[in-house]
Amino acid sequence: MRLLAIESTARAASVAVTEDGELTAQYFQASGLTHSRTLLKMAEDMLRDLNLTVRDVDAVAVAKGPGSFTGVRIGVAAAKGLCWGAGKPAVGVSTLEAMAWHGQGREDVTVCPVMDARRGEIYNALFAFRDGGLSRLTEDRAISLEALVGEAKNLKKPCFFVGDGARMCYNRFLEEGLTAFLPPEALLYQSAWGVAMAARDKEPEPAFDLTPNYLRLSQAERERLAKMS
Amino acid sequence: MRLLAIESTARAASVAVTEDGELTAQYFQASGLTHSRTLLKMAEDMLRDLNLTVRDVDAVAVAKGPGSFTGVRIGVAAAKGLCWGAGKPAVGVSTLEAMAWHGQGREDVTVCPVMDARRGEIYNALFAFRDGGLSRLTEDRAISLEALVGEAKNLKKPCFFVGDGARMCYNRFLEEGLTAFLPPEALLYQSAWGVAMAARDKEPEPAFDLTPNYLRLSQAERERLAKMS
Repeated sequence: MRLLAIESTARAASVAVTEDGELTAQYFQASGLTHSRTLLKMAEDMLRDLNLTVRDVDAVAVAKGPGSFTGVRIGVAAAKGLCWGAGKPAVGVSTLEAMAWHGQGREDVTVCPVMDARRGEIYNALFAFRDGGLSRLTEDRAISLEALVGEAKNLKKPCFFVGDGARMCYNRFLEEGLTAFLPPEALLYQSAWGVAMAARDKEPEPAFDLTPNYLRLSQAERERLAKMS
Repeated sequence: MRLLAIESTARAASVAVTEDGELTAQYFQASGLTHSRTLLKMAEDMLRDLNLTVRDVDAVAVAKGPGSFTGVRIGVAAAKGLCWGAGKPAVGVSTLEAMAWHGQGREDVTVCPVMDARRGEIYNALFAFRDGGLSRLTEDRAISLEALVGEAKNLKKPCFFVGDGARMCYNRFLEEGLTAFLPPEALLYQSAWGVAMAARDKEPEPAFDLTPNYLRLSQAERERLAKMS
C-alpha cells in the first residue's frame, strides 16, 4: 500500500510517501514559514519529483490532532482536499501516536510524546514498544508537567521525550533526579513518516468522515461559553 | 552558521539546511531514481521553498565517501558546482561519521554504520556517544562481516547498526547470539542531517580542495592493475 502522509500539527510541517511501511521520500520543514503556504507546495514538489500524482497513492494519512488548532485544521483540510480531488480515502491518526514511532527500537523506555498545549499544559500520551510493535498505555490528554512528573515516578522504564515540549520536559525530569532520553535531533519534532507508521494498520475511510480531534475547546469557544454562563 | 548539506553515497539521497546545528529543512528520497536526476532538483526545490539561494548559506557540506563510486562522485561534484557558482566554501565529511549521528542520544551502544561494499565486505567504522559528543573508535575501513562479528565480541557495549547493511548485520548478530539495535526506520539510511552534524565543528575549505575518499580502488582501476601486472 502506498500512502501520502501529512503532518502540520505544530511548528514543523512534513509530507512523506511510504510503500508498505518503507519510507520512499520525506520532505520536512521547521522553517517558521506558515503551513498554509508550505504544506501543499511540499507535497506537490515531492510527488512530482517521484513521478507520482495523488491518483497514484492508495490513501492520504494525516495527523488529526491534538496540536495547534490552526495547524491541525490546515493538515486535515489539505488531506480532505487532496482526497476529494483524486477520489481517495483518508486515514486520520493521533498526532501523539504518530510521534511515538520516533522511539521505534527502544524497548528500554516509556515513549512520551509531549506538545506544548499552552496554559501550563502539555498534550501527551504514554506508549511502549514490545516485540517491535507499539502499545498505547494512556489515552491522548492535556495534563500539567507536574502531573506527568508524578506519574513518571511510578513508571518502570524511564521517559523518552519527543515533540516541541521534549527539551523542556527532559530538563525538568533531570532536575527532579529522573532519568530521561531524547531522540536524535532529526526526529525531535513530529514527522509525516510517523503519521504513515501510525496509519499502516488502520482502515482508510471516506475523507468526508475525517474530523480533527482538538482535545480541548478553542480559545474562541471557551470565551463564548464564559460569556454565556 | 547556515549549512546546505548533501548526501548521495548510497541508494538514498537527501539534502538539508541547518542553522547552528538545528534542522531547518530536509528532503529525503529513497525512490530508486538516479541521483544525477534527483539530487540538484531536491536542493533547488528545498532552497526555493525556504526563500533561500546557495548565496544565503555559509558553506556546502557533503559526504565525500566511502560509498558507491557513482554516488560519491555525484555528491562531491554537485557540492563543488554549487560552491563554485556561489563563491562558497565546502566541508567534506566521512559518510560513516555522518551516519553515526543517527545514534545521537544512545550512550548505551557502540554506533556501527555499515554500508554494503560488495565483494563480501562492508564499509564500517565504530563510534560512541559520550556526554552528548561523538567519539571515533576506529578509522573508516572495508572489512568482512566475519571480522566485525569477531571484533564485536570484545566490545563492552552492543552494536547499533545504521546504513544499507544494517538489517543484514543486525540479523547476523542475532544469529550469533549477540545483542544488537536498529534506529527508527526513518533514520535507517544515511541523511543530509547527519552530514550537517558531522560538518558542524569542521573548518570550511576551498571547494577546489574537496576530494572524494573511495577507500578502495574502483573496479576499472583494479582491472587495469591486474592486466598490467
